[in-house]
Amino acid sequence: MSFETHPYTADMARPRLSERLREGCRSLWQRQMEHPFVVALGNGTLPSANFQFYILQDALFLDELTKTFAYATTKTTNHEEMEQFGTFVLNTLLVEADLHHRYGERFGLSPAEMTTIPMAPTNYAYTPHLLTIATVGTLPELLTAILPCAWIYAEVGHHLLDTVPPAPDHPYRDWLLTYASPDFDSVGTWIRERLDQRAPFLNAQEEARLHEIFLTSTRYEWLFWDMAWKMEEWP
Amino acid sequence: MSFETHPYTADMARPRLSERLREGCRSLWQRQMEHPFVVALGNGTLPSANFQFYILQDALFLDELTKTFAYATTKTTNHEEMEQFGTFVLNTLLVEADLHHRYGERFGLSPAEMTTIPMAPTNYAYTPHLLTIATVGTLPELLTAILPCAWIYAEVGHHLLDTVPPAPDHPYRDWLLTYASPDFDSVGTWIRERLDQRAPFLNAQEEARLHEIFLTSTRYEWLFWDMAWKMEEWP
Amino acid sequence: MSFETHPYTADMARPRLSERLREGCRSLWQRQMEHPFVVALGNGTLPSANFQFYILQDALFLDELTKTFAYATTKTTNHEEMEQFGTFVLNTLLVEADLHHRYGERFGLSPAEMTTIPMAPTNYAYTPHLLTIATVGTLPELLTAILPCAWIYAEVGHHLLDTVPPAPDHPYRDWLLTYASPDFDSVGTWIRERLDQRAPFLNAQEEARLHEIFLTSTRYEWLFWDMAWKMEEWP
Amino acid sequence: MSFETHPYTADMARPRLSERLREGCRSLWQRQMEHPFVVALGNGTLPSANFQFYILQDALFLDELTKTFAYATTKTTNHEEMEQFGTFVLNTLLVEADLHHRYGERFGLSPAEMTTIPMAPTNYAYTPHLLTIATVGTLPELLTAILPCAWIYAEVGHHLLDTVPPAPDHPYRDWLLTYASPDFDSVGTWIRERLDQRAPFLNAQEEARLHEIFLTSTRYEWLFWDMAWKMEEWP
Repeated sequence: MSFETHPYTADMARPRLSERLREGCRSLWQRQMEHPFVVALGNGTLPSANFQFYILQDALFLDELTKTFAYATTKTTNHEEMEQFGTFVLNTLLVEADLHHRYGERFGLSPAEMTTIPMAPTNYAYTPHLLTIATVGTLPELLTAILPCAWIYAEVGHHLLDTVPPAPDHPYRDWLLTYASPDFDSVGTWIRERLDQRAPFLNAQEEARLHEIFLTSTRYEWLFWDMAWKMEEWP
Repeated sequence: MSFETHPYTADMARPRLSERLREGCRSLWQRQMEHPFVVALGNGTLPSANFQFYILQDALFLDELTKTFAYATTKTTNHEEMEQFGTFVLNTLLVEADLHHRYGERFGLSPAEMTTIPMAPTNYAYTPHLLTIATVGTLPELLTAILPCAWIYAEVGHHLLDTVPPAPDHPYRDWLLTYASPDFDSVGTWIRERLDQRAPFLNAQEEARLHEIFLTSTRYEWLFWDMAWKMEEWP
Repeated sequence: MSFETHPYTADMARPRLSERLREGCRSLWQRQMEHPFVVALGNGTLPSANFQFYILQDALFLDELTKTFAYATTKTTNHEEMEQFGTFVLNTLLVEADLHHRYGERFGLSPAEMTTIPMAPTNYAYTPHLLTIATVGTLPELLTAILPCAWIYAEVGHHLLDTVPPAPDHPYRDWLLTYASPDFDSVGTWIRERLDQRAPFLNAQEEARLHEIFLTSTRYEWLFWDMAWKMEEWP
Repeated sequence: MSFETHPYTADMARPRLSERLREGCRSLWQRQMEHPFVVALGNGTLPSANFQFYILQDALFLDELTKTFAYATTKTTNHEEMEQFGTFVLNTLLVEADLHHRYGERFGLSPAEMTTIPMAPTNYAYTPHLLTIATVGTLPELLTAILPCAWIYAEVGHHLLDTVPPAPDHPYRDWLLTYASPDFDSVGTWIRERLDQRAPFLNAQEEARLHEIFLTSTRYEWLFWDMAWKMEEWP
């Protein structure tokens, strides 16, 4: 697909699609930074039981995110994009292996113990949302579904690091440094670029659908902090 | 596929797969009958706002269930099964059209108003669970995922009708009669038969996966009553 | 989806999308009518071995077409369309059952014998083409992929009936009357309408993709006659 | 999934599943080595027009094979397998990029010219066969579908190299060395191991389906040589 020329005149003054999507749920976006889990993660007061709950659920989440990147590979004919999605598959597996290694030791859990923990309700709701879009949706829909995860984590990382630079003995220092890193920033930036390039080709109904997907994923991001804060359980 | 002969000796004394699945979540199953929403639905004390909330969410649910039956059609080469799944597609559309017609009038809502109501969180979590299994799962997995819905509604219908036979002016009389009807019973019975016929061909890991799916759908059935009781909202 | 208003000004003088698709492969379209299999089918000189080969392959084709209609049901939120696709599922199963009953008797084959005949190469190439688009394509792509089948059969039926009205003892009279019937015409007409309604929402790249799909299905229609003419075999 | 223990007693004397699959189409397997295209490729007499036709079609094939590996990533929860499939995605993209670079220069074709060449009929038939299984099939089915490609190319490479060691000026020397390399061998070996590990968990119907899939892919491998030999065209 060539993005050089397109059927609409680009309006340079208009915010890009990804900006419009975020603008559409600005207050919920802001509330991510203020969620008690996030605040406590930043100032180091988060109980370690909550952090452990969070990390174990996050490891399960990454398995499904890996699949989402694999599906993305099948939805484009652009080789640069296929290669990037394939690289995301491998990197997500590496990040998860690292979580298992680093925190497994810290929590005293074997790799097998880490993977046999069941998904909490919000995690189980979030991941089929991603996978349903990944299997039957379009690539812009898939990019939109995974964007809040990449974008919010980078913003949360920078926000927390800027608010209170973590002392060397901050219990969650390595977590904060990971998500405030330029490497992690580049994931969200790349997804946004690829989505924004496709924006001129979307009709109004398609764009409305993207707003709906972006809002849902943003809600699940908030609910994910909330799940770990309440150590959510099934009925 | 021929089910006449199979590689294992059928143990006549052993409960059938569908019975084993239900047995695996017996206490949660019993709690469906005791949920305040169900109790109030049966004795007619359910506030009409909760009933309206429930019916509108149920109509949205049926749209996704229709798709699940359509996917089922693609997962078998048995013509009798394909025909039954195709008939379920059409019947589910009819039930939904009837909900829109009957309750739309009662609630003073136009068909357009009924369909533009957004899915509540539990409904949105339940339906991608079904659709993910419907798109990438096996037919036994799909049958297992939709079975609690058909089976629990029939049991709830009979249970409520047996407990207190509804007076002619019971506000939810028609709802109760629908789900306690032999027509509705036959849906769950057929799904169970088709699932039980496949049981001898499943290995231990495949059966373990069915227990997990059945439990999850059963949880979502309980959470669906709970959603309507609390008139659940997004954050 | 509402088709009432759309972002482009409809150009009334411009042929509709379905017309443009056919125009794009006009010569191949015309060659369908002139294929020796079609000519011989029309004038009754087709050897019965070729007809039998054709009918048995067609029955296998209809199984896969049924699945394509089932997938179509999952790709729209319009209830009228869902209902029509569900009806196509059931009707295609009926047509196939009728082929088995009517021709099975005529050929002296049991239903089991009819279904265990393997797909010939062209049939096996055509049906994964349809199914790949049905699973991962958009609804306009799916409609475009199945349109040549519905449209060409109606045109062939009318063409043959108009050229030489079949005598009462014409060996393929019932086949000719089936495909020249108004009932069969309505299938292609409905598919064209639904596709043409979506045309204003397609960008240039999406329309180019439809031309490619339509051409491929049209080629497979021609190759399907050729397969039956040559009683094609695998290497 | 644990493959350590399984429900059947392994019969050590019985050939492994992958061996049984190949045994089921032994004569066709042997005929791959004797196809005039393969013979001419080995002795260097293949006209360069045929080789160019072949390479261009192969590049298009690799795009679809990449997607097949991406789908495979979504069909396992074993991290070692996910990582290997992700690596196959990236490696297949590299092989294709290398084809474009090396042969594009040799043929005087730009990358754009190489990718705009349409798929020949056999290539277009083979790849939806793979993709249909990749989207809706099981992982053993997917592994079986891609195995003949990896296995036959390694065998053809070794066979040709053993028959006539290519002189330094052999026009297809680099092609021969690629497919006779240990690196390429390891692809087929890994796929076979993963398939054979799952064999004990398959019932008779599932294994019968694998034989059918393996035969079909083997036929397409033979037809692919034939396509390039005849420089196959659409009607």
